[in-house]
Amino acid sequence: MLLNPQLNAHGALTHLLSTEGLPKDILLRILDTAAAFVGITDREVKKVPLLRGKSVFNLFFENSTRTRTTFEIAAKRLSADVLNLDISRSSTAKGETLLDTIDNLCAMHADMFVVRHAASGAPYLIAEHLKRIGKHDIHVVNAGDGRHAHPTQGLLDMYTIRHFKQDFERLTVAIIGDILHSRVARSDIHALTTLGTPEIRAIGPQTLLPTQLAQMGVKVCHNMQEGLQGCDVIIMLRLQNERMNGALLPSASEYFKYYGLTPEKLALAKPDAIVMHPGPMNRGVEIDSEVADGPQAVILDQVTFGIAVRMAVMSILAGN
Amino acid sequence: MLLNPQLNAHGALTHLLSTEGLPKDILLRILDTAAAFVGITDREVKKVPLLRGKSVFNLFFENSTRTRTTFEIAAKRLSADVLNLDISRSSTAKGETLLDTIDNLCAMHADMFVVRHAASGAPYLIAEHLKRIGKHDIHVVNAGDGRHAHPTQGLLDMYTIRHFKQDFERLTVAIIGDILHSRVARSDIHALTTLGTPEIRAIGPQTLLPTQLAQMGVKVCHNMQEGLQGCDVIIMLRLQNERMNGALLPSASEYFKYYGLTPEKLALAKPDAIVMHPGPMNRGVEIDSEVADGPQAVILDQVTFGIAVRMAVMSILAGN
Amino acid sequence: MLLNPQLNAHGALTHLLSTEGLPKDILLRILDTAAAFVGITDREVKKVPLLRGKSVFNLFFENSTRTRTTFEIAAKRLSADVLNLDISRSSTAKGETLLDTIDNLCAMHADMFVVRHAASGAPYLIAEHLKRIGKHDIHVVNAGDGRHAHPTQGLLDMYTIRHFKQDFERLTVAIIGDILHSRVARSDIHALTTLGTPEIRAIGPQTLLPTQLAQMGVKVCHNMQEGLQGCDVIIMLRLQNERMNGALLPSASEYFKYYGLTPEKLALAKPDAIVMHPGPMNRGVEIDSEVADGPQAVILDQVTFGIAVRMAVMSILAGN
Repeated sequence: MLLNPQLNAHGALTHLLSTEGLPKDILLRILDTAAAFVGITDREVKKVPLLRGKSVFNLFFENSTRTRTTFEIAAKRLSADVLNLDISRSSTAKGETLLDTIDNLCAMHADMFVVRHAASGAPYLIAEHLKRIGKHDIHVVNAGDGRHAHPTQGLLDMYTIRHFKQDFERLTVAIIGDILHSRVARSDIHALTTLGTPEIRAIGPQTLLPTQLAQMGVKVCHNMQEGLQGCDVIIMLRLQNERMNGALLPSASEYFKYYGLTPEKLALAKPDAIVMHPGPMNRGVEIDSEVADGPQAVILDQVTFGIAVRMAVMSILAGN
Repeated sequence: MLLNPQLNAHGALTHLLSTEGLPKDILLRILDTAAAFVGITDREVKKVPLLRGKSVFNLFFENSTRTRTTFEIAAKRLSADVLNLDISRSSTAKGETLLDTIDNLCAMHADMFVVRHAASGAPYLIAEHLKRIGKHDIHVVNAGDGRHAHPTQGLLDMYTIRHFKQDFERLTVAIIGDILHSRVARSDIHALTTLGTPEIRAIGPQTLLPTQLAQMGVKVCHNMQEGLQGCDVIIMLRLQNERMNGALLPSASEYFKYYGLTPEKLALAKPDAIVMHPGPMNRGVEIDSEVADGPQAVILDQVTFGIAVRMAVMSILAGN
Repeated sequence: MLLNPQLNAHGALTHLLSTEGLPKDILLRILDTAAAFVGITDREVKKVPLLRGKSVFNLFFENSTRTRTTFEIAAKRLSADVLNLDISRSSTAKGETLLDTIDNLCAMHADMFVVRHAASGAPYLIAEHLKRIGKHDIHVVNAGDGRHAHPTQGLLDMYTIRHFKQDFERLTVAIIGDILHSRVARSDIHALTTLGTPEIRAIGPQTLLPTQLAQMGVKVCHNMQEGLQGCDVIIMLRLQNERMNGALLPSASEYFKYYGLTPEKLALAKPDAIVMHPGPMNRGVEIDSEVADGPQAVILDQVTFGIAVRMAVMSILAGN
């Protein structure tokens, strides 16, 4: 049997690399722990000493101010020392290998690496290396790797869905947009499946849907009319600017016409359906402002829960 | 009656956007509070726990390492968590609107935004938005917006003047240089006026003086001989490099000849006149080194008081 | 008698500018203090409150993410507030002089400057200036100045050697590579000499060896066979990429052939010789991977000891 690289020998979470392969009880434990942290961020003093004296390194090989900021806030609210490494200007740029960089940071007694990388699998490579060199007390959190996974986004999406819909067992969830290039979609699909969601639908133009959706148990819909019917949860994806100018799509306005979420299209879903988006939004491209700012949107709740979920993940990894 | 956007319903300071429109008692309260913090920065341990657990976001849409650093020090000495957002590389750069960025940071439970922006009015826009969405416990500090205002610089200038001259009611203050493009000059003039300064003079080439000075109660002088006569306080402004190459001025050496503060020109003022400058100085352009390093210069005192004034502003906004 | 600019009137360390001229008792005190900090970085909570409330400014005029990170970690583990100044985008870039920048940071009540500068002597200039203006309680740590010195690297190298070889009095140490451009080599040679190392050898191509080695008491060897014979300690230097393309060296592979440390060449040294490298390594240029990852390499120990040594230096300077 292949060991799950995210779990240690006792079956406890030691890295968060993907929602794929995470047992249901661990997913639920993260969500339950996050619930406790939602309360803390509402308090006057938003700090707890759970990671005091720990060194958390933000290793962003790919720039993302938003995601880095959420991890930095989460770590600081846990009282950790946070070190932001500007990797593009670091030793890696001077020709040092990724694993030599990691070895060096381990030697500085790092406790946790939050890794964002354009290459799918980079956080796995780091986690495997840590195991090989016997650094079992250093933890990796994947903050987005290539098209592969973005597990904390997946988890905060699960938190948001559970918050508004209580459980997953009677839900119909639609994921809409550029699923082919979306690590968020992939992380959501795996988590939703493990948590028992009976119907997951993918909606988007043929060119932006991966071929393996059916074998992941996802129902492919090519138009919004069919896909939104009776939905409880709608997850919109960001359309990357570079896709719009490429060969995959005719134009942003054409895209909006067919796949942009307008009040009219939203009316096809259940009346109490919630609308989610990982941000940053392209208003007028994948989502109409009336929907984005409307009563069914829970997009800012996602952001709030995201801090709590990241605090929960870091806290669990650190052994609390 | 138009409500003052800087005050809440109870008349307390809730944002610091401009010295314009700030009541005298609030100006004085900030200066008095700063006096207490001047003592703290002299101590062995320069920290107080007034903002412990609070998240202060530095949103510098326009780069200014110096000003960002002063706010970062002030916030850290108040024990806040400081988050520096590299806005030029952030979601705003990915096409997200300014207010969507703000909404996201609010959802992360920000407590304070320190905003620097090239566009006049950007901090007002943010403050109005926070009011509209009911976020009454999130505060905005303007760290410089376009040509409009730089209120903490204005306040630290007032602190410096009061420190050396006790009160404002018998003073003659000269502001010298590129007043047209100076948010510092504007913030100083409003604060000096509210605090009862009887004579404020503006000295500079015609092309660098705004037309509305007279209606602000400022006396326009076109030469240093006339303007410096009998002055108690001399506020030099930085000449931006880009002005010197532009159409507004013949050359830096020409400028220095007419408006540069030399020991000879300084002798026209009162013997105990103080010389101020917001920094960074262009030695040999707007100010002679002999004056900059001389006994009448209080330029470094301004820097020291600046930290205390920023601590005072943040502390008052946070409700202490 | 010329006063040592690193010591105050009582002979105590007040700046760390170079290992050159540091008395043996001060070198040993730093190493002994570091030993205590090695234990701390192994603990669950890696923080001590020795620098609580102090403001440490990282002034990196030359970019070095690795070195800046080690100082930032060290300062944070001492509970200091750390301010990273992006000097390339700061007031210095706006034409402010270096000493005006320093005056401003002093006025903000800085406690320590960690300075990296491409110009040899820049940290001395700052230290002299602080003395001239009477700021005796502000300390300078040289984090690398031009080709001149990198004293914390020299000290961590001494710590590493003492850790593995107990004392210096019977050792043969070989330094290999581009000694001409290496501040690390210079700092190592001075420290080794003061600590009583009987034989220091320099190995490298003629074009990369400075002329004054003999008068520093260093034996020059032009080939590895001669130089490695009977060595206890081998210090490899990084070959800067720019050297390889220049006129000083034929090619990287040629360099590796003659001066790259391979298992075969390593076998010429004593069987228990240790291999050191300041990082980042160019594998296959100055060092073979088999050596870099082999049992005699202590390269990652150097990194670990480096944090402790920097904590020791900062702590001693701050008067603990």
